[in-house]
Amino acid sequence: MTTPLDRAREHAVQHYENAVELMRRFCAIPSISTLPEHESDMTRAAEWLIEQLLALGMDQASVLPTGGHPVVYAEWLGAPGKPTVLIYGHYDVQPVDPIEEWDTDPFIPTIRREDMVARGASDMKGQLAACLAALEALRAAHGTYPINLKFLIEGEEEIGSPNLGAFIQAEADRLGCDFVLNCDSGIYGVDQPSITYGLRGLAYFDLEVRGPQSDLHSGIFGGAVHNPLQALCELIAGMHDADGRITLPGFYDAVLPLEANERDVLARGKTMDEAEWKRLSGAPAAWGESDYTILERIGARPTLEVNGLIGGFTGEGAKTVLPAKAQAKISMRLVPHQTSDAVADQLRAYLEAHAPSTVTWELLQLAGAPAAITRRNSPPMKAAARALEAVFGVEPAWRRDGGTVPVVGLLKELLGVDTVLLGFELPDAGFHGPNEKMHLPTFKRAIETYIRFLNDLE
Amino acid sequence: MTTPLDRAREHAVQHYENAVELMRRFCAIPSISTLPEHESDMTRAAEWLIEQLLALGMDQASVLPTGGHPVVYAEWLGAPGKPTVLIYGHYDVQPVDPIEEWDTDPFIPTIRREDMVARGASDMKGQLAACLAALEALRAAHGTYPINLKFLIEGEEEIGSPNLGAFIQAEADRLGCDFVLNCDSGIYGVDQPSITYGLRGLAYFDLEVRGPQSDLHSGIFGGAVHNPLQALCELIAGMHDADGRITLPGFYDAVLPLEANERDVLARGKTMDEAEWKRLSGAPAAWGESDYTILERIGARPTLEVNGLIGGFTGEGAKTVLPAKAQAKISMRLVPHQTSDAVADQLRAYLEAHAPSTVTWELLQLAGAPAAITRRNSPPMKAAARALEAVFGVEPAWRRDGGTVPVVGLLKELLGVDTVLLGFELPDAGFHGPNEKMHLPTFKRAIETYIRFLNDLE
Repeated sequence: MTTPLDRAREHAVQHYENAVELMRRFCAIPSISTLPEHESDMTRAAEWLIEQLLALGMDQASVLPTGGHPVVYAEWLGAPGKPTVLIYGHYDVQPVDPIEEWDTDPFIPTIRREDMVARGASDMKGQLAACLAALEALRAAHGTYPINLKFLIEGEEEIGSPNLGAFIQAEADRLGCDFVLNCDSGIYGVDQPSITYGLRGLAYFDLEVRGPQSDLHSGIFGGAVHNPLQALCELIAGMHDADGRITLPGFYDAVLPLEANERDVLARGKTMDEAEWKRLSGAPAAWGESDYTILERIGARPTLEVNGLIGGFTGEGAKTVLPAKAQAKISMRLVPHQTSDAVADQLRAYLEAHAPSTVTWELLQLAGAPAAITRRNSPPMKAAARALEAVFGVEPAWRRDGGTVPVVGLLKELLGVDTVLLGFELPDAGFHGPNEKMHLPTFKRAIETYIRFLNDLE
Repeated sequence: MTTPLDRAREHAVQHYENAVELMRRFCAIPSISTLPEHESDMTRAAEWLIEQLLALGMDQASVLPTGGHPVVYAEWLGAPGKPTVLIYGHYDVQPVDPIEEWDTDPFIPTIRREDMVARGASDMKGQLAACLAALEALRAAHGTYPINLKFLIEGEEEIGSPNLGAFIQAEADRLGCDFVLNCDSGIYGVDQPSITYGLRGLAYFDLEVRGPQSDLHSGIFGGAVHNPLQALCELIAGMHDADGRITLPGFYDAVLPLEANERDVLARGKTMDEAEWKRLSGAPAAWGESDYTILERIGARPTLEVNGLIGGFTGEGAKTVLPAKAQAKISMRLVPHQTSDAVADQLRAYLEAHAPSTVTWELLQLAGAPAAITRRNSPPMKAAARALEAVFGVEPAWRRDGGTVPVVGLLKELLGVDTVLLGFELPDAGFHGPNEKMHLPTFKRAIETYIRFLNDLE
């Protein structure tokens, strides 16, 4: 006698080609959120999703307006007493520039060897397709769904989700759930599943340092006027010590030490030696806090980065200007308990203490998002780990990622719910770049993982 | 019985309106060397000068080709046994942007109160006009010229004299002289004449610091890759110590100490207190080596300046890039005995010692010009001082200027001749900016000063 899980897995295997076709059709829609000329494609992508969700028997599926591109919302609440999962994804994709570096048309999904090559294949239409295929298999096996389902599929992830916070706030009742399944994530490798349980937050600033009122001639004034570019360099240079630690006053006060237990968990996952890091980053050498491993530095430690700097003459050739001002973009990646407001105060305090009276400065905060960390031993997290191990035959690595996924923090902050990040993008998937691809054997495993995960939660 | 000098001065006073008209006509020609659409105006300006020089009885006056805009050359060698002075000037002017900030058309010279407002009025058509008026007066008074005259009036000063070195080298025989009178210079104020006897040299570099091979995501890589913008800031910050001294190894080895005697001479001239410096520079405070006065810092001390810096994302808003490279324009103003090759080696040595292995760097030298210093007690320098004192009623201040006038070093290097810088631009003349002007009472004094100076040399 077979279990529903066996039947669902069998269904998925039998209908695997349909799942690939589902991904292909979704990827063929050029839903580039940042380009106005793709407005109608955005609508098509949203309507295509509604069609799929209704075909899967959702009680309702609708396109809900936001201040920008709409959200696709759907729900099936036919399992009273069972948990409710909110499945998060996005139907928009990045632009395709540089188009000349693509080997095939980014919106004519093409299978090459083991990959489907298309814009959005890994980020993240392939994963939404895998999730839909898993739901179809579960429904076929159970005759219904074992848990309650809600969908929040936005159209503005690739432009920074500018309207998502307001939407979640306005629709908080509708979006209520026990936890979130966010499929917009990745694993370490084809044979090394991983679960991201920590994400860094972000605080982003414009810093302007001003010297003389207008650009001066460096011959006539140089030597007796503090060059604002030099002053800015001096300020930035002082923001790290020789070991790569950040010197803003109180910056590490809220940063919890990495406990031995967590360091062990992290160390059991993927390791990263200097040679591999050099290959992956293309940098001449690794850098950073020597007390931490490379993966701890990017996942579990806060950073301060100069994202851009400009001032004076930057064209071809020589112009002997002593510039009036210099501007830098400075951002920090935050870990739990740090807030963007607190680090803004710390940056301001540093500037107040160190900026010389020979220049003036102005600091503007542009963006902020909290870090997110999820308990590794919650039932959904343990279910995700079990599902991955069953499918891949390897215990998943627990990881803390360095990037920021604002929706995770927003859902925690506004709905109070934790997120399970369970996605299947591979490190070499080329997301945001040319020849983006989804590895088909991994896509197949993704379907089975979602089946096992959702089945396990009932 | 009147002397020739008396008669020449009297002639100049009688014909002053003609001199103003001469300046007006010269300034009305929009000879902007950097703009191809003004090519025919460049030709007109050169031909206009030839006409004036022939009218003054030059033995010959011709337009000599260079690799770019031609040189106006003229000579009168009818005073055998007398010194030969090479009068240097330029007939090109700067562009007029921002045109909307001009109160009148920059090429319709307009008298407002005591000034003639026009592009080129002070830099330096007004001074060439004053010099021509002085020569006319001397010729009227003497019936001939008391000394031998040559003219070198270039058309590329405002674009950095790219072809002048080759021209001087090729025409070295023709240009031979006892000394050079360079009229492209200024005085401290309407009642404070000055003579510039020192000019700083220049060495200009492009410095590129490279980190990862391509731009990275600051979340995914930040914390374990040395940001090349940060590395560049660290390198630049280390190029000065807390007192504003330059830290390149050996940088001050060739720099002669300012002797007490020269400091006294400089101190007797214009003084500059902090308040006046703040007003003049528009900087919040003075800066630099505390052991030197402001005027010594800009005139007699070498400097290192960041003229430009760029890297990463510099548009509106936030982009979390960890950039692949960062680029800076770095220049140094040099004092006598420093060479641009030597400071290039010192900059390279500094980078080799301080650039970390986490980045790579490349240094490119773009330009170099030697410093120039002229003995204050040579006969022409003493004649210039006497002329200024006689006209202004005040002993001229001896000054060392911070800027670089490449032609002074070129003529010294290629012809072995010293230059007397005797010009009349005022600090508020707006050269290179909108509403450039020549102060007419100073223009009148300029004519008399040139008369006295040239008459005194016979």
